[in-house]
Amino acid sequence: MTHTLIYPVHSAHNTVGHLEIDGCDVVSLARQYGTPLVIYEEKTLRDQCRRFVEAFRLRTAESEIIYASKALPIVALFQLVEEEGLSLDVASGGEYHTALAAGFPTERIFFHGNNKSPWELEYALQHGIGTVVVDSVDEMELLERLLQVRGARQRVLLRITPGIEAHTHEYIQTGQIDSKFGFGLAGGAALESIGRAMGSPSLDLWGLHAHIGSQIFELDSYRGEIRVLADLMREAKDRFGFDCRWLNAGGGLGVRYTPDDSPAPIDSYAEVVCRGVEEEMARVGLPMPRILIEPGRSVVAKAGVTAYTIGTVKQLPGIRTYVSVDGGMSDNIRPMLYGAKYEAMLANKVEQQPDTMVTVAGKHCESSDILARDVELPSPQVGDTLVIPATGAYCYAMASNYNGNLRPAVVMVEDGKARIIVERESFEDLVKRQRPLHG
Amino acid sequence: MTHTLIYPVHSAHNTVGHLEIDGCDVVSLARQYGTPLVIYEEKTLRDQCRRFVEAFRLRTAESEIIYASKALPIVALFQLVEEEGLSLDVASGGEYHTALAAGFPTERIFFHGNNKSPWELEYALQHGIGTVVVDSVDEMELLERLLQVRGARQRVLLRITPGIEAHTHEYIQTGQIDSKFGFGLAGGAALESIGRAMGSPSLDLWGLHAHIGSQIFELDSYRGEIRVLADLMREAKDRFGFDCRWLNAGGGLGVRYTPDDSPAPIDSYAEVVCRGVEEEMARVGLPMPRILIEPGRSVVAKAGVTAYTIGTVKQLPGIRTYVSVDGGMSDNIRPMLYGAKYEAMLANKVEQQPDTMVTVAGKHCESSDILARDVELPSPQVGDTLVIPATGAYCYAMASNYNGNLRPAVVMVEDGKARIIVERESFEDLVKRQRPLHG
Repeated sequence: MTHTLIYPVHSAHNTVGHLEIDGCDVVSLARQYGTPLVIYEEKTLRDQCRRFVEAFRLRTAESEIIYASKALPIVALFQLVEEEGLSLDVASGGEYHTALAAGFPTERIFFHGNNKSPWELEYALQHGIGTVVVDSVDEMELLERLLQVRGARQRVLLRITPGIEAHTHEYIQTGQIDSKFGFGLAGGAALESIGRAMGSPSLDLWGLHAHIGSQIFELDSYRGEIRVLADLMREAKDRFGFDCRWLNAGGGLGVRYTPDDSPAPIDSYAEVVCRGVEEEMARVGLPMPRILIEPGRSVVAKAGVTAYTIGTVKQLPGIRTYVSVDGGMSDNIRPMLYGAKYEAMLANKVEQQPDTMVTVAGKHCESSDILARDVELPSPQVGDTLVIPATGAYCYAMASNYNGNLRPAVVMVEDGKARIIVERESFEDLVKRQRPLHG
Repeated sequence: MTHTLIYPVHSAHNTVGHLEIDGCDVVSLARQYGTPLVIYEEKTLRDQCRRFVEAFRLRTAESEIIYASKALPIVALFQLVEEEGLSLDVASGGEYHTALAAGFPTERIFFHGNNKSPWELEYALQHGIGTVVVDSVDEMELLERLLQVRGARQRVLLRITPGIEAHTHEYIQTGQIDSKFGFGLAGGAALESIGRAMGSPSLDLWGLHAHIGSQIFELDSYRGEIRVLADLMREAKDRFGFDCRWLNAGGGLGVRYTPDDSPAPIDSYAEVVCRGVEEEMARVGLPMPRILIEPGRSVVAKAGVTAYTIGTVKQLPGIRTYVSVDGGMSDNIRPMLYGAKYEAMLANKVEQQPDTMVTVAGKHCESSDILARDVELPSPQVGDTLVIPATGAYCYAMASNYNGNLRPAVVMVEDGKARIIVERESFEDLVKRQRPLHG
């Protein structure tokens, strides 16, 4: 198979010339469960978790790997990352509820977000959230009020906007000064928030958090982030006697969507972060904090592929060939939203030589509902099973019912066995919250 | 109120200084039903339907207005447009199911889409679909096979790609030559498909369909489309004796999202289309067909607003002020997807002078989760009810559970009364199709 780096680790050709993932024939899965079908390889998921845990454990005394649930917030995955020793970050009441449904230890859950609603915070407090990452003055006040009513104290981190612009798509940069997120350094907002939190009877300030963006390929950005946070820690130590026990460097490590992408290995990332914190703590004369990181995309992206069935092949002589599949922007909006590039292959023709340059279109009523452009396939035909790799992150998580399409089933495969972790939506799901016009 | 043109027709200030829509206080609605809340004004919906029906009835002997359901495919709306005499277009099994749930007369339903799955076509045939708009050679063959098995004949239109590029966002252009949709004129594909359909024992070819794009402001494009279709009709008449009984000019009429937008009035649109068909039929010497059009956006956009609650106000001195609301890209992805621009106002401060330039941010973990940029609001504060107008089309229709957010409730208001037409999602809805990792 070409480009094995972008497929789940145990992808292979089987004896009937089909793609299989950890012993499961993808063409058979498509037949059994229908398409579109999202397929995750359990071993790749566990492998990624272990790489992160190991890479940091090797390099620093205390670390915590927190799965950023928004990349794929589902019960089965929460249970898997918990088994691998990861903690969890959630960014809404809904994600927290999903974590509770998964039985995730609440002590190890972090509540993120630039605008947590009062009911969401209340729900999280009621159900013993471990750590709230406070994002703004308004939120700090709200949280204090809720805690006073409960007569409780709450562990918090403060989200700092470090003023670092990561080299990534503008949409997924988050660390720049002009940001809806966190307390900025300019004008002393970040420093002030530390003093404010330390003086609060209901807040237990354990540390700082920053996040500079997503799908980051250049590790320098992390080094810059840590430098800025170290200066802030020193200043806060001098001013308020602040001890930063936990330093959360956020997530954002890039992944490989196509063979052209060259993300940094997890080990290099861990090295930059751990060495960076060490050097910076030495520079500013502070003890090492526990290092927290929040990978999301890099845990799940590669483990997942989406299988579709080709419904039409349309040749426009001299222009292009459109291959239309039975899904598209309702199950993967990333090409439209971020200009994301994907590869494609035919699971039932893995041993045939690609000979036809095609554009893979979805079935939605928009011209730009395109999953992959200019990919080569071996004589694509109606009925072929087309697979898009590296769809494990931010695809199902952003799925919609646009054009009345049903959200796909999700299966997990391991050692030749597949099991459903999310059932396909039904027609009944589509209309059950709807009420008639009259009565 | 400023810019009444972008709000539902019966929007007003009430005696307590709040925005009301047809007698319903929006602040009260937000309190009663929670936020985010999508609010539709029934009268604006009916008014838009009637304008289309009247504008075409006045100008041509036979016309049919088909609501393009993808703009908002929900039961209550299908029932409303049916009462107003509109027909319906659907683009998936799910939309067809929703139409059946609404009790929509199947005779008046058109099945669209560049890649209808076999099971979707089968489902539509089983339930008496009125017209199938055939999009490709592959689909024609599939449909013929399904009909042969059933021993049935089916009314069809053929979707033609007229090679017209409408002046609109590239994403929502559909009529250009390089398109996944329809039969192109180049190389004779369109003409050939007419001959093919006419020779088919199971297809009953009633006419042609074309669609040149969405959110179109310049009516010239429609004139060009009709000219091209007329030439094709003449050629097909000469070659195959084809009588085009129905000519479907598609949809795409632009709407006003901000006061800067100047869409053509429905009357001008009807004039261009009806006069265009008349002139072109005279030119090519063919009798007038029934004129079909498919408005979606222009039926529902203005009738709908979304109400949010402000959760945080973050001032970045010298940069901007971020106002964060309790929704965002999961209920309205259009700003991110199409660069769509929106206005905003505070429903509880309609009589106060706007004094603060803000950026309205959503609550999702992405920097670009921005609903409106550089809008002026009167001293926005935590707890204010913020309203974004003109969110009636392609917002709820594309809603997701991204970041674990629940899809909003939808209410319909009329004469001071509100009723739920779609219930808000619950935590239970979020996880109920999910299965645990083990067992």
